[in-house]
Amino acid sequence: MHDDRTGQVAVIFVSFRNGADMIGYAEAAAAMDALAATQPGYRGVDSARETDGMGITVSYWADDAAAIAWRDHPEHAAIRERGRALWYDRYSVTVARVERGYDWARP
Amino acid sequence: MHDDRTGQVAVIFVSFRNGADMIGYAEAAAAMDALAATQPGYRGVDSARETDGMGITVSYWADDAAAIAWRDHPEHAAIRERGRALWYDRYSVTVARVERGYDWARP
Repeated sequence: MHDDRTGQVAVIFVSFRNGADMIGYAEAAAAMDALAATQPGYRGVDSARETDGMGITVSYWADDAAAIAWRDHPEHAAIRERGRALWYDRYSVTVARVERGYDWARP
Repeated sequence: MHDDRTGQVAVIFVSFRNGADMIGYAEAAAAMDALAATQPGYRGVDSARETDGMGITVSYWADDAAAIAWRDHPEHAAIRERGRALWYDRYSVTVARVERGYDWARP
């Protein structure tokens, strides 16, 4: 959830897993979550996956430079190659600039 | 998944369901998906929910006017009130403008 994300860059990753190498995938996903959180300009992540393998991860970055630096991080790039080789049937990446938002919580 | 979404408006809805009224929720969610798809400027939706109730839905719109018209649609507004009354513990809405993106599929 967010406070005010206006101006941040949201990277929307929609992926379809194929079920191969579940343990390797889980380890890599946890490692990437931990590594992303240490990167300059990291502002958070939300992630959900259906039991059929379709998932959405939205990561938030202070600016475009931070999002691009994470895209180009050597460990991230290496994991992306493993993802293409092993884990995913297809995916999309959509990069968007946050214009507004709000939170609601049960009073 | 997308072709080229550059310039579209992405509405990122992150929600935490509480498990109440599962059938009513499922019916309303299906009805809203169907209604959204008939709205002017609708460009698609991706949605995933974890078994613990946390979910992400990203809907895409041709422009801000289309996204706002859907937000203000009377049936959508009525369902939102039911969501606050019954189904959700908390949620966030983040509106972002798509700047770029790409798709990958296993060759």
